[in-house]
Amino acid sequence: MIVTVTPNPALDLTYHVDAWRAGASLRVEAPVCRAGGKGLNVARVLAQTGLLATAVTTVGGAAGAVLRRDLEESGLPHRLVPVHGATRTSVAVVDLAGGETTIMNERGSWLSHAERRALFDAATGSLSGAACLVGSGSLPPGVPAAFYADLVRSAHDAGVPAVIDAVGDGLLAAAEAGADLVKPNRAELEESTGCPDPAAGARRLISAGARIVLVSLGADGMMAVTRERGLVARFVRVLDGNPTGAGDAAVAAAASCLARGEDDPGVILRRATAWSAAAVPVPYAGELCADYRDFEHLVSLREGTRECP
Amino acid sequence: MIVTVTPNPALDLTYHVDAWRAGASLRVEAPVCRAGGKGLNVARVLAQTGLLATAVTTVGGAAGAVLRRDLEESGLPHRLVPVHGATRTSVAVVDLAGGETTIMNERGSWLSHAERRALFDAATGSLSGAACLVGSGSLPPGVPAAFYADLVRSAHDAGVPAVIDAVGDGLLAAAEAGADLVKPNRAELEESTGCPDPAAGARRLISAGARIVLVSLGADGMMAVTRERGLVARFVRVLDGNPTGAGDAAVAAAASCLARGEDDPGVILRRATAWSAAAVPVPYAGELCADYRDFEHLVSLREGTRECP
Repeated sequence: MIVTVTPNPALDLTYHVDAWRAGASLRVEAPVCRAGGKGLNVARVLAQTGLLATAVTTVGGAAGAVLRRDLEESGLPHRLVPVHGATRTSVAVVDLAGGETTIMNERGSWLSHAERRALFDAATGSLSGAACLVGSGSLPPGVPAAFYADLVRSAHDAGVPAVIDAVGDGLLAAAEAGADLVKPNRAELEESTGCPDPAAGARRLISAGARIVLVSLGADGMMAVTRERGLVARFVRVLDGNPTGAGDAAVAAAASCLARGEDDPGVILRRATAWSAAAVPVPYAGELCADYRDFEHLVSLREGTRECP
Repeated sequence: MIVTVTPNPALDLTYHVDAWRAGASLRVEAPVCRAGGKGLNVARVLAQTGLLATAVTTVGGAAGAVLRRDLEESGLPHRLVPVHGATRTSVAVVDLAGGETTIMNERGSWLSHAERRALFDAATGSLSGAACLVGSGSLPPGVPAAFYADLVRSAHDAGVPAVIDAVGDGLLAAAEAGADLVKPNRAELEESTGCPDPAAGARRLISAGARIVLVSLGADGMMAVTRERGLVARFVRVLDGNPTGAGDAAVAAAASCLARGEDDPGVILRRATAWSAAAVPVPYAGELCADYRDFEHLVSLREGTRECP
């Protein structure tokens, strides 16, 4: 079983507009409404691929009630910590004319000390028998940067590998705590390490203590760096679709490898690149296209950390 | 007491973005969340001006629960009809850089025959002792165009004047039923009557049976037409702000006049123009600026239906 921890979940509302026109009153259909947040997306992808995953997160307010119902209806195993502040809402606007998706992300409601503690305890309480722990996404106000690092230490105390998808101080602290894998994208890595070059940034996180750094490079593919090796992968086809959730699919792929004791960065990188690509044709985060298994054959991989031309 | 009927309410979420960038992931604060819908805005304005108003509307689903709580907390008298379909959500995006507000309006959930009947009965059951009835806003799927016309007839049977703010067949049917006042804006009037000229469109509604037609002309002011007279008014100052809800303020002004037996179109037009202007400096619909009473002195009025130059 894989445990995913989402400290800052969101109710995801996706609106489709024929054409966004600033200042207009646009007629839209009711939005697609889904429990969201990075760790929840990771758990959904794992469930789709046949792996048992439990989503640990918080719920509060009206949006939290909808999130809880969506999780119950989806059948995804979950452990919810009730909190006072309202679960945030993320609004995505898909412009059918322009083809872009614009997202409005709230920071999330404050967690009290007791609520943060309850979330931490719910996560560590799920570690018994777990094969991997995933901590994913932003930290809401009131949750210190050490939150993920503390989770990594608790996972290791329980003999469970830990994957962290975070940014800034939360990412650095997780690396220092010896996270088995961290997965920033290029911008997050630069923001966190100050290195514009992803290979140099990844090496900083390795020096800090991370075992594997997976860097998603958008259309340029993905990079994996360990103390000994560096590899770059590309998906060989160009895909149309919605890249939202592609990073979560990569995290799910990495967790699925570590959960079965597979820590070869080449194997992890191939699967992460494949699943990430398989998330693009699907309009919503947390889901791969049906033929995702075939995608691992469509990944080109090479040693070295120079990006592909 | 004035009764406002809102067949298609909405939970209004207002987001503020520093600058809308298509395709970007934008960090936003939690939205301002309010019970919305035109008739609710009318009732709020009436309450602000010291008049007793009861809002009759439907509630369903999670957004409906939030709308109910907001109404309860606001102290606005209300009569809520529970329905199966979820209350729609209206998302407004205020672009602080561009200055525009873009709104995404859902059509609303289907009302069953029994739910439509229950709403109608809640409205007519509030007519005893009422001084005016207001029917305002779009009709959700499942509610026929005759809904407002039937309300007008029931109001007249009870000796209560009726104001209808609607569009298309709903507006035409209300005029034919002898509505005491209808308030389309220029685009709605053209859509409903096929007349690009607002004076000609207003006369069509008068011929159909409406007693007073109030046409909001945006920055060009407002027009009032009866069988005998036509008048045009302008607010003499240019106002910065958010015109959302200005039309609802005009409806509230008209209802406040009819409720005290005042049906002089000049008096109504002056107040409607003033309150409409007083809604612009306020960022949210359903509220006038504090000095709204002074605004009636800032309205220039003249006979005739030629628009001001």
